[in-house]
Amino acid sequence: MRILVIGATGTIGRAVVAALSAGNEIVPASRKSTAITVDLAEPASIREMYRSAGKLDAVVCAAGQAKFAPLSQLSDADFRYCLDNKLMGQVNLVRLGFEHVADNGSFTLTTGILGRLPMPGGAAISLVNAGIEGFVRGAALESPRGIRVNAVSPPWVTETLLALKMDPSEGLPAAVVARAYVRSVTGKDSGATLEPSA
Amino acid sequence: MRILVIGATGTIGRAVVAALSAGNEIVPASRKSTAITVDLAEPASIREMYRSAGKLDAVVCAAGQAKFAPLSQLSDADFRYCLDNKLMGQVNLVRLGFEHVADNGSFTLTTGILGRLPMPGGAAISLVNAGIEGFVRGAALESPRGIRVNAVSPPWVTETLLALKMDPSEGLPAAVVARAYVRSVTGKDSGATLEPSA
Repeated sequence: MRILVIGATGTIGRAVVAALSAGNEIVPASRKSTAITVDLAEPASIREMYRSAGKLDAVVCAAGQAKFAPLSQLSDADFRYCLDNKLMGQVNLVRLGFEHVADNGSFTLTTGILGRLPMPGGAAISLVNAGIEGFVRGAALESPRGIRVNAVSPPWVTETLLALKMDPSEGLPAAVVARAYVRSVTGKDSGATLEPSA
Repeated sequence: MRILVIGATGTIGRAVVAALSAGNEIVPASRKSTAITVDLAEPASIREMYRSAGKLDAVVCAAGQAKFAPLSQLSDADFRYCLDNKLMGQVNLVRLGFEHVADNGSFTLTTGILGRLPMPGGAAISLVNAGIEGFVRGAALESPRGIRVNAVSPPWVTETLLALKMDPSEGLPAAVVARAYVRSVTGKDSGATLEPSA
């Protein structure tokens, strides 16, 4: 398969690339660290990315920015940023991507544990993650040509917790998280939110 | 209690007003059919509504517009409309409303069955409904002064199905749906999505 991986240079993205590399052609994309770059907040940038990437069998997004901050401090602009970037950025990857993906291909978006299990400071992220999961359920019913649409909802990732000097015992290694992306790309699920587990 | 009901003249709103009227003071609001009007898509309009409404014990929203259409026909503007109106409109009711609501008060927002159970044509609505439910889970953890935040996810409403000349047997009467709003306003739930049932 020819697989576009957006956020290919991030912690999860690198693990997804590693897990999918054997037998597939990976087309890496990111904000600025790859030959193909994309700003998820800009539909025109997404369109340009697809033109550069060519024909695809699968699209995996392991990117998308949102703001973690106390609810009382989240501004109108912060919510707008979250909606434009992680939420509509990934929605637009699907909407604008259908025509670039082969029959029976797939889209795999990224949400996160805060969509289901909130924590203080995460209200905008809970909104965005749950919203993407709702969109995925709906979009899967209307995908043309057998194309599947899923989300992966990663828990805290061990490598991220270590980088933040936090207790890594609550996390899952990125290589384990990547298995959920592999399942989404190679399996039969559609409309699903896959929750990685050890 | 003094209860602001937004969308007070709609099918669900009227039933909520009827169910909460005994022993409470209802402050009705709507787009244009009440003394206090509001455009949920405009934060300035929400602020003005709260100034007009005065001190409140509870805020119930049974309003919010979103677009039902095939995914392939939903435009950028359609998504923007859904996000500005039903989604951020209700998020902003909470963000801008905290200071107007008494200790141990509540906010009750409205989502809908498509958030959990999608159907063709409902991708943007599934996104919006699930996003509101995610926000509610997060915001409930950060509410000040014991204020609770819930969503009610109505199924199809019998009166609406009849008005659309559709089979009403799948619906619940608005008066039954209203019980979930009463539970949210008078009970102890917070961060919950309440699903009305017969």
